[in-house]
Amino acid sequence: MGRNNRYIGVDLGATKTLAVLFDENLAPLGQARVKTPSEKGGEAVLDAILALIAEVCGLYSCDPAALTCIGVAVPAPIDRASGTVIQAPNMGLKDFPMAKRINKAVGVPAFLENDVRAGAWAEYRKGALRGCRNAIAVFVGTGIGGGIIIDGKLLDGSHGHAGEVGHMILQDGGAACGCGQYGCFEALASRTAMAKDAAAAIASGKSPALLEKAGSDFKKLKSSAFEYALAQKDPAVLRIVERSAYWAGVGMANLVNVLDPEAIVLGGGIVARFGSLYRDKAEESMRAHIMPGFVKGVKVLASELGDLSVPTGAAITAKEALDSAAAP
Amino acid sequence: MGRNNRYIGVDLGATKTLAVLFDENLAPLGQARVKTPSEKGGEAVLDAILALIAEVCGLYSCDPAALTCIGVAVPAPIDRASGTVIQAPNMGLKDFPMAKRINKAVGVPAFLENDVRAGAWAEYRKGALRGCRNAIAVFVGTGIGGGIIIDGKLLDGSHGHAGEVGHMILQDGGAACGCGQYGCFEALASRTAMAKDAAAAIASGKSPALLEKAGSDFKKLKSSAFEYALAQKDPAVLRIVERSAYWAGVGMANLVNVLDPEAIVLGGGIVARFGSLYRDKAEESMRAHIMPGFVKGVKVLASELGDLSVPTGAAITAKEALDSAAAP
Repeated sequence: MGRNNRYIGVDLGATKTLAVLFDENLAPLGQARVKTPSEKGGEAVLDAILALIAEVCGLYSCDPAALTCIGVAVPAPIDRASGTVIQAPNMGLKDFPMAKRINKAVGVPAFLENDVRAGAWAEYRKGALRGCRNAIAVFVGTGIGGGIIIDGKLLDGSHGHAGEVGHMILQDGGAACGCGQYGCFEALASRTAMAKDAAAAIASGKSPALLEKAGSDFKKLKSSAFEYALAQKDPAVLRIVERSAYWAGVGMANLVNVLDPEAIVLGGGIVARFGSLYRDKAEESMRAHIMPGFVKGVKVLASELGDLSVPTGAAITAKEALDSAAAP
Repeated sequence: MGRNNRYIGVDLGATKTLAVLFDENLAPLGQARVKTPSEKGGEAVLDAILALIAEVCGLYSCDPAALTCIGVAVPAPIDRASGTVIQAPNMGLKDFPMAKRINKAVGVPAFLENDVRAGAWAEYRKGALRGCRNAIAVFVGTGIGGGIIIDGKLLDGSHGHAGEVGHMILQDGGAACGCGQYGCFEALASRTAMAKDAAAAIASGKSPALLEKAGSDFKKLKSSAFEYALAQKDPAVLRIVERSAYWAGVGMANLVNVLDPEAIVLGGGIVARFGSLYRDKAEESMRAHIMPGFVKGVKVLASELGDLSVPTGAAITAKEALDSAAAP
């Protein structure tokens, strides 16, 4: 690995986009962030990514054309081989050849990865799952996703779709999910699920602290509003957070029973926000729901990379794709 | 592989035990079966296995001491390396060194495997899953178990326990499971679950055909009683069978969403008994519960090996263990 190798990992999100510059050891040198112009469509999103790449390179006097490669992690299904975003309607992307367009604009190889898969792989390579052979990462945020490490490899599945843990059904006939099913993990534990419960608590007058912060605007029920209400010792909100953690534990238990991993890292925006309050409750629920023989063998870990897990994974997977393309 | 190599695979069950003699290509030559003396404890069970081995060898003029190896599949947790049955209370086995005892008695190498894992591996090597790289076998019988093939290998997990698919929670708070949880796949879809529903149908006078066959004796609610009642067009029993298949579909859907396999083979006693009536309903439910993007990519297959899947898998895993021990 050359001493001057530099990599960029981009975490493209529907609300904001983060680009991180990494050194030859994939350690972060610096970052730049921007509001994603999702409503302006694919070309605007691409332009924003290109501007961010230029910005973060500028901060470190690094010529973008001298980068070794660029990885972009996308919260959507992708075609890895062609570097195409298959469909991300909330950003106006459909069959969008993101990798080729970046490659053409910057002049260095570019690769795509799915965001939760990138995050899981980063925790395995550089974070909490280092040294594990079989492990799982579960990310709880607006949605719920995961990545599965088997025998030291990120599980692709037959069509590259493995790890849709958020759509495991944990309570058939339960809460409606965006996917059309009822009782999915995501419908029970995500930020979206919490916001629904919170709206009900506000409507029934049970959460004065949330009412004060969010009023009746469903969109204002963000993590910060929950955090504020928790600080006010709002009991309705404490129950909502604990309920999400309970379901996170059930989802993790299913994964442990099926896959028998050494460790699960529990990350994502919700977990980052509520920390050990959330993680401890989720672990307690997981241990209560797994087969007795599994209880001692599995660890629940906090994410070590936090916000950097996805861009780090984007850079690592890009580097690995480049290396394997160069291999004889 | 020598031309005269012979293998025996034993399917040890709590009610009956089956031994099958295989030729050098792992094709079955013949079999012998006996009622398992479970209530008499471990030594009696071992003696029954040894007698069966002698019997099936006798039928084909094969000297037991000339067998290449013997594999025994056990419906219980095992320690593969030491060939020990960790715990099978229903057969009086606890820390029982089954492989060593058979090896000592017969004079040929013996190996243990878990029964559903053996069945899954046999379907991959010799049955419905031939040619797949990523696949799953789900067996629905008195209990529910599974085996997961990833990249052409049977998934062990970190402690050799992977594949406990029967204890995925599909309806938290639902029917009580023998494992102590509520709403496990096994508690909703196994023969045991069906028998509970049947008892309720009989008690409420809704299933005259089952009442005729089983009376009020819960133990008589076997697959044959269900089959009889179905032939009588008993609507309560049709609902019970369809309900089990529905839940089998939910369980399979969770596995597809997490693992993205090419195919699932659905086998086991219940599926064998009700055939395509059951399998079609289970597949319909699975397709209704998976993510839309997965629908086209996964096949649901019938077991090709049926009753022979477990003994075949026991013989194959034994042969492979022997080969890998002999490898430099």
